[in-house]
Amino acid sequence: MYLHCPFLCLFAPFFVPWACMQSFEIDKSDLLRVKAALEGDDATLQEVLQQYHSSEIAIIFEKLEPEERERIINILPTDEASSVISEMDEEHHPAELLVNLTPEKRSEIVEELDYDDATDLISQLDEEDQKEILDDIDQEDATNIRALLSYDEDTAGGLMNTELIKVNINHTKNEALEEIISQSEEMEEFYTLYAVNDDDELVGILSIKDLIKAKKQVRVEELVNKDFVYVKADLDQEEVAKLISQYNITSIPVVNDGMKLLGRITVDDIIDVMEEENTEDILKISGVSEDEELAGGWRDAVKSRLPWLVINLATAFLAASVIRAYDDTLDKLPIIKAYITIIAGMGGNAATQALAVTVRRISLSNLNDKQAYVTVTKEFLVGLTNGAVNGIIVSMVAVWYDANPLLGLVLFFAMTGNVIVAALTGATVPMLLKRVGIDPAVASSIIITTFTDCIGFLLPLWLATKLLL
Amino acid sequence: MYLHCPFLCLFAPFFVPWACMQSFEIDKSDLLRVKAALEGDDATLQEVLQQYHSSEIAIIFEKLEPEERERIINILPTDEASSVISEMDEEHHPAELLVNLTPEKRSEIVEELDYDDATDLISQLDEEDQKEILDDIDQEDATNIRALLSYDEDTAGGLMNTELIKVNINHTKNEALEEIISQSEEMEEFYTLYAVNDDDELVGILSIKDLIKAKKQVRVEELVNKDFVYVKADLDQEEVAKLISQYNITSIPVVNDGMKLLGRITVDDIIDVMEEENTEDILKISGVSEDEELAGGWRDAVKSRLPWLVINLATAFLAASVIRAYDDTLDKLPIIKAYITIIAGMGGNAATQALAVTVRRISLSNLNDKQAYVTVTKEFLVGLTNGAVNGIIVSMVAVWYDANPLLGLVLFFAMTGNVIVAALTGATVPMLLKRVGIDPAVASSIIITTFTDCIGFLLPLWLATKLLL
Repeated sequence: MYLHCPFLCLFAPFFVPWACMQSFEIDKSDLLRVKAALEGDDATLQEVLQQYHSSEIAIIFEKLEPEERERIINILPTDEASSVISEMDEEHHPAELLVNLTPEKRSEIVEELDYDDATDLISQLDEEDQKEILDDIDQEDATNIRALLSYDEDTAGGLMNTELIKVNINHTKNEALEEIISQSEEMEEFYTLYAVNDDDELVGILSIKDLIKAKKQVRVEELVNKDFVYVKADLDQEEVAKLISQYNITSIPVVNDGMKLLGRITVDDIIDVMEEENTEDILKISGVSEDEELAGGWRDAVKSRLPWLVINLATAFLAASVIRAYDDTLDKLPIIKAYITIIAGMGGNAATQALAVTVRRISLSNLNDKQAYVTVTKEFLVGLTNGAVNGIIVSMVAVWYDANPLLGLVLFFAMTGNVIVAALTGATVPMLLKRVGIDPAVASSIIITTFTDCIGFLLPLWLATKLLL
Repeated sequence: MYLHCPFLCLFAPFFVPWACMQSFEIDKSDLLRVKAALEGDDATLQEVLQQYHSSEIAIIFEKLEPEERERIINILPTDEASSVISEMDEEHHPAELLVNLTPEKRSEIVEELDYDDATDLISQLDEEDQKEILDDIDQEDATNIRALLSYDEDTAGGLMNTELIKVNINHTKNEALEEIISQSEEMEEFYTLYAVNDDDELVGILSIKDLIKAKKQVRVEELVNKDFVYVKADLDQEEVAKLISQYNITSIPVVNDGMKLLGRITVDDIIDVMEEENTEDILKISGVSEDEELAGGWRDAVKSRLPWLVINLATAFLAASVIRAYDDTLDKLPIIKAYITIIAGMGGNAATQALAVTVRRISLSNLNDKQAYVTVTKEFLVGLTNGAVNGIIVSMVAVWYDANPLLGLVLFFAMTGNVIVAALTGATVPMLLKRVGIDPAVASSIIITTFTDCIGFLLPLWLATKLLL
């Protein structure tokens, strides 16, 4: 199975009819139903839309035209409309949709949104549009959103929501419950309660379970858990995600330097961060700028990819200069031409493998000196084995097909050597980058591959010059 | 900045001293402190360990020897010890640690674990060890764990926890609260309450907030939200993760075909699934078997990577045969040798870029026919632009350095053509694979690159033969 798979990949698609798409939540029939309803009057459309959850409508939106989205938003109740907009992927430009609505509808929707979602949306607009929207809405909401806009969007502050439930540690159980009920009026759901002192400093977290179970006159102070994880507002979002994942918690409080409670980050926001960071990792390792929008236009894609290609072209000339330097050997031993491309190519592949494993490992946890040493030893052994096996195959071809045993020997050593160098490069370069504070994923396979190309041409040509001429 | 970065990557590390490692939660000084305490008596060790959260000890464990881990587990209180074991990464073999404990300690720990965590651990053992552990522990726990072991570990059933809080819809508010307090006795935390009918069938979810706010005599039925998302036990874990991410929920109930409530999956389990799936994606796209353990031994790494390399070697011979077929051209125009490796390499790079963007895009959402068509058009334009720019650079080099304008023309067309083919291949192959039900990530850059190698050699050699000879 394993061995057949890649061949299937290359050829199977061409023999199988273009099948119909499927998605778990929403399939084509849902899209067609909404499309059909869009042809009819508002009442029909409303009836059809009622059958869908707001996040399902957000998915359907991806396949609709801007005017169709606008009509649906205008027809939906405000709470539903704001849910749909907040659940649209940034790639489908929910902020543009917002700007095109009437000022009244727009203000209603923004006021309905959680502050963190509103801030995300508004931050995608230019300053003029931002000002217009914020001037229109309720001024308390506007103040909160302006405060959130001041944080870098990739930090804990940019991610947090200021709506949360906090109770004073001096409250009794019943006072606390009343507090909770009144504070939760405007919140959809809450999971963790935060306990603060009279100076509004965070002193602990309170479990709703413990509160319910407690006797009436017990004070919050006695119930509070003071051993909790929190983050400062300027912490990078990737670190926040690591903490939440590491400690298995569903939300984390955000504080300023004086421990004053600023907001909280919930795990659903972290899931979005994780998807974003993983997209960036896959793109960077493949030599694509991390901010290329997956569904963006071709001009943006050129901007994001061309610089890497041009850099690579420069390094490719380096590899090509190795070939030029051994012109004489190539003249006298023309048969080696075909083989050097094989050896260089295999080095590139082995390096890509080692790079992927190492980059992913580093991004999940740091390596200490001993682990780094073990990794290098491991990759050496992997390179040696994989290189030798491929070296034997290539040399057998040279012996049988080209009837040249000495060439076979040269190719064996060149292949083994190049795959070892490749495995070591793929593993050490990202580890070194990490240690000097550069993102290891930028050691993209493109750059590493060019390096192994040079060695891949150099080794067989040098060995052939020494041994065969 | 952008353009300088890759050069930094290649050379900077060699000039900078090997810096000390850093991790957000735990740094080297923590490890040294625990290591030092391990030299001393149990009291000292206990005192030091008290300063750490169980998930922090789990991180420190990664750098300790098996005997050291055992000693710490034996010294910790049972609840703490079971937390540490459940939070250890599978790669560091928590199950082996468990097996090496005394039967009493082991049983205590397993009984303390959540059922889903206990099942995960036990499933990593061979049948004999599984039987021994399950025979030793409390028989109610054993029955629950055996039931969970029967589900495939990559499905909702394998992921779910059977510990949850359910209330009957006919209960009043106060009866429900009492139910909740008694059921939550053994649970660490709960977020969602499930409402069932007399036949134990799931009819809705209940928010603790609504329950607290309700008047005393209100029945659960009136508070329940019947519009909720649930999954069947056999649903693939990746689909579960998509649902949780899509609907922004913190837990999801798992039911059988008759809607009987079997368990619930919480978002912290989903974060682990997402990390796992993302690791698999990065590995597969780089030609590494998806089940290679990142920190595994070299023999496993060889098993996981060698098959891909051998497959690639076979296809590399295909590319090499193109070079052999044009032996005559290469003889008469030796200067083209160095250029064909550049053109082939650039095609590989362009294909890797298009592949990464497309694979990631497909893994986040499905593409319909129109989006697929737009993607192909976009990649054609990207390939045309990037190919032409690189083509111009290569042809300028041919004109200035090799003083051969006609060669420059051939190289320009070959580069442009190859980069277009590469971009189209990188984008269409994963889309086609997805439509025929094969994982698009197996269209690994290795396979795609070999394909572009063939075209990359063929195009310049064919053009040169036609135009220059």
